[in-house]
Amino acid sequence: MTAAKGGEIEALVQVLARLPGLGPRSARRAVLHLLKRRDTVLVSLKEALAAVEGTVRNCSVCGNLDTGDPCGLCADSGRDHSVICVVEEVGDLWALERTRAFRGVYHVLGGTLSALDGIGPDDLAIAALVARACRPEVAEVILALNATVDGQTTAHVLTDRLSGAHVTVSRLAQGVPLGGELDYLDDGTLTAALKARRSW
Amino acid sequence: MTAAKGGEIEALVQVLARLPGLGPRSARRAVLHLLKRRDTVLVSLKEALAAVEGTVRNCSVCGNLDTGDPCGLCADSGRDHSVICVVEEVGDLWALERTRAFRGVYHVLGGTLSALDGIGPDDLAIAALVARACRPEVAEVILALNATVDGQTTAHVLTDRLSGAHVTVSRLAQGVPLGGELDYLDDGTLTAALKARRSW
Repeated sequence: MTAAKGGEIEALVQVLARLPGLGPRSARRAVLHLLKRRDTVLVSLKEALAAVEGTVRNCSVCGNLDTGDPCGLCADSGRDHSVICVVEEVGDLWALERTRAFRGVYHVLGGTLSALDGIGPDDLAIAALVARACRPEVAEVILALNATVDGQTTAHVLTDRLSGAHVTVSRLAQGVPLGGELDYLDDGTLTAALKARRSW
Repeated sequence: MTAAKGGEIEALVQVLARLPGLGPRSARRAVLHLLKRRDTVLVSLKEALAAVEGTVRNCSVCGNLDTGDPCGLCADSGRDHSVICVVEEVGDLWALERTRAFRGVYHVLGGTLSALDGIGPDDLAIAALVARACRPEVAEVILALNATVDGQTTAHVLTDRLSGAHVTVSRLAQGVPLGGELDYLDDGTLTAALKARRSW
């Protein structure tokens, strides 16, 4: 393969192939696309990388990735700073923002507790969350963690830690997803949806 | 969305999302991966892009992308320069090189003839191919074009153009792919495999 393409091209394929969602084949396709459009796409990508490299940092308040600190969400006085939505990762924050259904602020934990991976409370931004929740303007903490075993274990620990702060702790509703067909849903989801049924 | 992530991050997502094989969702995942590993992955990608940007060019002999001109394949005296394998794109050349089954040299056409897309003989490296084929050391031209309508039309035109050069013109065999199940193959492939049957 090194005979077919120069070492520099192969190096670029290798770097791209390690990105999530890209394998060797799609990395090669992407590199060919970049090389064919050296003056436009390749330069755009290089410039976009350079632009984020020096400027993006984690918000010291919520952990979000942004070019300012505090981030654009924490600095926005138009948002409701009395409601903190706790998420595992920045990607979850982006997903919630895309819904435009939440106008409060966020707190990025940086993962979930995991005995298997050796991730304990001190590895996550839990102490910072409790400190934020204790501030007088905060009224509610929404735990928007993944509906996985680790996510739910973490939610229980957080509920426990937040019991000292005078805040309402809530979590996302569980149930049938939009467009979900009962026949294809797992038993756990169906059970949860049945237990949490609401009057029409 | 611009509220959730800074304009620089969104710009990087947009550039990545336009690469083949990546959509908005996988571009966001890739950007999060890059941002979390700013000091390693992001820097590697930026450097790999910079390394190819200034050095990669199209080989003036065969059209391959490489850091040298002529490319590593054309400059390799260990390869058989009497056989030229004609491919549509550099990606096809890479695919053939991965098989390690061909030790000749290549000629990249840059596409196929296409009345629909307005691509005529002058838009492809056809004249250069004919000129190469006329050189005394060349004995065979293998047409390794895609088994599509445009690919096969182009192959016919090339065969016609090459009739003046004293070379054998061949093409890839058509038939049942390795692991192919007859029940799932299209009629055209089965017909071709039947017609080109070989004694055991």
